[in-house]
Order: sequence, then structure tokens, then C-alpha cells
Amino acid sequence: MSGKPLVAIVTAGLAKFGKREGLYGRELFQEAAKEAFDRCPNLDPKKDIEATFVGMMAEGFEHQGHTGPTVNAWLGFAPKPAFRTESACASSSAALAFGMYAVMSGAYDVVLCGGIEKMTNRSTPEVTEFLATASDFPFEQWHGITFPGLFAMMATAYMHRYGATEEHLAHVAVKNHYYGARNPKAHMQIEVTLEKVLSSRYVAWPLKLFDCSLITDGASCVVITRPELARKFTDTPVYIIGHGAAQDNIALYDRDDLTTSRAAREAAQKAYKMAGVEPKDIDVAEVHDCFTIAEIIAYEDLGFCGRGEGKDLVAEGQTYVGGKIPVNTSGGLKAKGHPVGATGTGQIYDIYKQLIGEAGPRQVPGAEIGLTHNLGGSAASAMVWILKRGD
Amino acid sequence: MSGKPLVAIVTAGLAKFGKREGLYGRELFQEAAKEAFDRCPNLDPKKDIEATFVGMMAEGFEHQGHTGPTVNAWLGFAPKPAFRTESACASSSAALAFGMYAVMSGAYDVVLCGGIEKMTNRSTPEVTEFLATASDFPFEQWHGITFPGLFAMMATAYMHRYGATEEHLAHVAVKNHYYGARNPKAHMQIEVTLEKVLSSRYVAWPLKLFDCSLITDGASCVVITRPELARKFTDTPVYIIGHGAAQDNIALYDRDDLTTSRAAREAAQKAYKMAGVEPKDIDVAEVHDCFTIAEIIAYEDLGFCGRGEGKDLVAEGQTYVGGKIPVNTSGGLKAKGHPVGATGTGQIYDIYKQLIGEAGPRQVPGAEIGLTHNLGGSAASAMVWILKRGD
Repeated sequence: MSGKPLVAIVTAGLAKFGKREGLYGRELFQEAAKEAFDRCPNLDPKKDIEATFVGMMAEGFEHQGHTGPTVNAWLGFAPKPAFRTESACASSSAALAFGMYAVMSGAYDVVLCGGIEKMTNRSTPEVTEFLATASDFPFEQWHGITFPGLFAMMATAYMHRYGATEEHLAHVAVKNHYYGARNPKAHMQIEVTLEKVLSSRYVAWPLKLFDCSLITDGASCVVITRPELARKFTDTPVYIIGHGAAQDNIALYDRDDLTTSRAAREAAQKAYKMAGVEPKDIDVAEVHDCFTIAEIIAYEDLGFCGRGEGKDLVAEGQTYVGGKIPVNTSGGLKAKGHPVGATGTGQIYDIYKQLIGEAGPRQVPGAEIGLTHNLGGSAASAMVWILKRGD
Repeated sequence: MSGKPLVAIVTAGLAKFGKREGLYGRELFQEAAKEAFDRCPNLDPKKDIEATFVGMMAEGFEHQGHTGPTVNAWLGFAPKPAFRTESACASSSAALAFGMYAVMSGAYDVVLCGGIEKMTNRSTPEVTEFLATASDFPFEQWHGITFPGLFAMMATAYMHRYGATEEHLAHVAVKNHYYGARNPKAHMQIEVTLEKVLSSRYVAWPLKLFDCSLITDGASCVVITRPELARKFTDTPVYIIGHGAAQDNIALYDRDDLTTSRAAREAAQKAYKMAGVEPKDIDVAEVHDCFTIAEIIAYEDLGFCGRGEGKDLVAEGQTYVGGKIPVNTSGGLKAKGHPVGATGTGQIYDIYKQLIGEAGPRQVPGAEIGLTHNLGGSAASAMVWILKRGD
């Protein structure tokens, strides 16, 4: 196993996910940053942090773009540079990539990477409309399809090919709510039964209300540095040892296969190769369960099981702690919530907590290597990160 | 003079700026890429280009976000990764920074960086509203101010402190239209007289119609690589030898001084230092004349003259070819046009053309070192690039 560290994470923070009334996205980012700074007393943020990289999906939500200076000014970081990235629901994974390259290039030693999205101030139709901008305008949006419909088509194709049922999908929701109920930062801290999921109303057949992730406000961040500087800031660094980014054609009609994500498979292959690890080496993973079907497909795209076997992996309980590969012990997008721009580094935050042994009742014992899988839109973009605990 | 090359530009392209009816932004990007690829026969785009970085300001214009996969799919580049950046009107300078760091980090050898904005399909009030998202929502937009008003406040402060007049501002418009009339890629290829500018209707006092840049469709791009690989692709590489990015507080009320841009000054200082050059070494510059006042302030922030002297520099004709420092020989945002997301790498395109000696009737004889100055919003962000012709 190689796995040369690319950069080190020295601290991380997450604003509580949920309906955060009365707060702007910039204030949520401040809340996330405060946690990160508080847990890293050796870091002097205004002195040490040289640039900020922030992911946000849609300026429509708050009628606010120019997110770099907006969040940076609120942290008192001007005139230091700040940049925004957008890759739909993978926007903050893109911010982390930008920040990582900036550090690896030698331009900066220490940077802040994160993401925000403030969604609950908008009505559900407005949210649905803003989210739809991540799909293809002339060939998808124009015809009225929105994200539940796009993922419903993937679910239908998967069910048809592999004989999966709505019950298979429901197992994902039950598991992720089980963990959400144990995560104080999660949006929905309640358990649900298989019956409750199966009897919830249809949003887009076969996807029901409890197959869908949440409309959530949130922010998340990490502070990264060159590996050799990590111990200056913390005794418990976590290293990024693998990263892969890839994409697929934007519109679903233009994909080879709806039962898998080419972008995710490519991204995973690159990340595994770079990290020098295999799927079986991963101790814990956060995957992009924007809809339950997406988690099942993610298992397969990440190589945790063979094609068509993801439905059984979850039904057999193999993705709980104690199983073959624990997935979404944070509650996932399904129960922790999905403030789209904050999701990518929010996943990184949860893996970071697992690797430093702070996941509480959701802890995977002895977790050493973790992975995040973050999709943009209908998997037109994907990023995979592999993290390793410092020795 | 040091100026170690950071990366090399091996080719560049620009879709004609203007009202490009019937074309999507992604198609304009394709047009820009085609020019870049056509002028670089040694480049095999699908094989050589490993990632795409694209700046775009607002998904509102085309109801289309997720710009990375959108443009990349249209180029046939899937599954290679593609990312979007946003920094208001400096969005594609941010894309270039992302791509540059990615190359400098060793992650990629050859990448495509550019930007797009499709604006003219929207009504002027809609455009004004989308652009306003680059200012502060609670403290600016909420009170009804839009960009002409924000820059009018800067103009007023500048006029009050330095005794500048509307005529000083008008000289910027006359110069930039003079060059726009000679640039076949410009949106408005017409000359204007001082009288015409001065008699145009007020938009926000003291700024009149001809003090404002244009609502334009456009796209631009460059292909960059590691300096040592440049000659594999071209005999006329142009090197990026300096780069600076900085920001200011997002809202105008929160700035120390309205007659200068702290962000631009910081960015320029960093870029000059990195490049090992001084303002007097710059042979040609493209600066961010979103409003005429912005160009005058840019002269000063870039050190082309002292504070309060920018008004005289333009009035004396010193920023024409043949003068002390030729500025905006492309026509600038004023006449070439300002498709916001495309502007940053559009400025790079024009400096690239000057440095390879292809600026035609607008050529600065023997230009060796060029500079671009790109503001985001009301200068809440700024980026400065310094380019040098290969020997």
C-alpha cells in the first residue's frame, strides 16, 4: 500500500444541518469555521489561513453570489483571496480540489476549504427549480423533469435489470435514519421503519418521500496544509491520500447506462490508484445518497460489491457498523441532510471524525482509511476522496 | 528581473463577443475552443487536455448551472473532469487560477481554462438583477442598489477628492471605442466622440450610458501546460510569470476608501513581486473597465500613475498605443463587451494576441510583457495576471 499524502487535514467543522431560520449562509459558514478553529488551538486563523475556497451550488437560494468574498469578509479574512466553486451537489468537493491543488502547487501553506447552502428560506417548488439547474436545460429541464424524476429513471432501470424492489431501496433509508438519529448534527434525528418508508407517498415512482434526501441549511469546512506542516497544528492529522474527479455527459439521454455512474467509477479508480488501496481496505465510507437508489449504485461503483449486488448488500445489513463496509454512519444526505454546496466537505468532516475516533455511538472501531463519494447533479460529475488517519 | 514561468499558455480562443442569438453558452465555449485548437495543430485536444476549468457568473442567465460537465460534454471530453468557478466578473480568472494550480501541483500536464456568459437572452432588468447577486444581499441589494449605482458612488467619491469631471470619464469611453472599432471580435465596433459620450443619458449620476460596459454573450479560453512542455505544442508560448488574487469586504459601506480598490492593489503587488517586474515594465494592459471610473482607478491601483493622476493619464492620451502605457487595446469591457464569466480569460486572450504579435491595427510594437486586471463585482475580488512572451 503506497498512499503518499497529498495534503493533511488539520481540523474540520460543520454547522448543524437543519432548518436554520434567521441565519444567512455566510453565518452558517462562520459557525462551521468556528468549530474548526476551536478544535485547533495551534492554528491562528487570521494569520495562518492564506486563502479560502468555498463551494456553493446556486446563488438563487439567497440571491447571493460572489460567495468567496462574502464568506471571507464575514470571517474577517479580507484582503486574503477567496474563490467559489460550483459542481452542483459536489460543489464543496470541487472547493477542496481547488484548495488542495493550491497547496500542492506551493502557492499557499494553509487554506480553508468548505461549502454552504441555505435552502429552507425558499419554497419547495423554488428549491426544486434551483436544483434543476444542475441538469441539462434544453434536453431535460425544458421538458419539465426535475431531480426526483431523473433518479427515478435510474431506479427503474436498475430494478428492471437486477430485480431490485422498492423494499431494497427502503433499507437504505432505514439504515441512514438509524444513524441520523444518533448524530446531533443531523437534520432529521429520527429512526424510521421499513413500513414507514414503504408507505410514504410517491414523489416519482418508485421513489417515495423517504427515498429522497432533505432540503437543508448547512455549512462545512476543513483546514488543509502541506503534510510536513500538519504536526505544527495538530497531533491528530488526517491525510488525503487519494482523489479522483470525473464527469459524464450532462443529460441522462446521453449516457451509456443508467444503472451505474461512469463518472463515479472513473473517479473511484483514480482515487484508489493514487491512494494505493483497494475497496476492501476502506473501513468507512460516506456516499452520495441524494436518493436511496444512488447509495445502492454507489456501493457497486466503488467496488464494495459486484454490479447488481448493491441491493443485497444493504438488505443484508452489511453497510451498518460491524458489517462488511459501514456506509453513511453520519445519516447521509438522507437523514443528516443535503445542503447541496455543503455536502462534499460535510462528508469529509464525518470521515475525519471517524478517523480521529470522535464519531461517538456511530464510531467504526479502529477506522484507519475512509472514503467519500460525492455526485454532482444526476452524476454528471463525481468526486471520490480517500483519507487516512495519521500514525 | 526574475519572472520564473508558472505555466505556459500554448493557445487561446475567443468566441466573437456580441448578441449571439440562438446559441447557448456551451456553444460559444465550443467556438472559443475551436479557435484555440485550430491555432495549435500540435495539440490533440481529446488526448492531451486532461481537465477543464470554466468560469461563469450566474446560472440564472440560462437556467443552467453545473457548467463544468455541460461545456465538457459538448466538447466530447467526458469522462475527464471539469469544474466551474465563480467570482462574479472575475469568474474565469478564478478558473485560470484553479487550472494553473492544478498544473503546478503536478496533477495534470495540460488543461483548458476559460469562461462563458450568455446574457442577451434576458431583459435588461433581469440581467441587472442577476448581476446584482455579486453585491451584498442584506446590505446592498435589499436596498435596491445595483451595479451602476455602486460604481457611481465610487465615481462621485473620486471626483470629489481629485477634482475629476465627467469629461475625464468620457475619455476612457472614447479610447476604448476607438479600439473596439478596430477589433473584429468586439461587440460594438464603432467609434464615439467625447460629445456623444457626454450627451448620452444618465444611468446613475455621474455615469451615463457610454460610461457603462455592455451586456454581451461570449466565451474565451486558453490552454495551459507546464513551462517545460510548452514547445511541444507551439513555437510561440506565452508564460504566466505573475499572479495575484485578493479581495475586499463585500459591501461598499464596509470599505476604507471608495477611490481605490484594496483588492486590486493587493493583487497587483503580489503579481509584480512574483513576476519580478514593476509597473514601468508593462508594455500593454487589459483592465476591468466595467464602468469608465473603474479604468481610471485601475491605472492608479496598478501603479501606472500616482493616486488622483489616472484622470489625467487618460485625458492626455497616454493609454493609447504609443503612449506611456497602452490600456484596453481590445476595446475593453466598454466596447469589446463584458460577458461577465468570459471576461477574465478574454483579457488574457487579448494580451496573448499582443504578445505573439497578432493584434493587427491595435498592435503595441514589440510588446513583451503584458498585464490583465480583472475585478469581481464592486471590486470585492480582484485578480491580476502578468504574462511574458517566450524568447
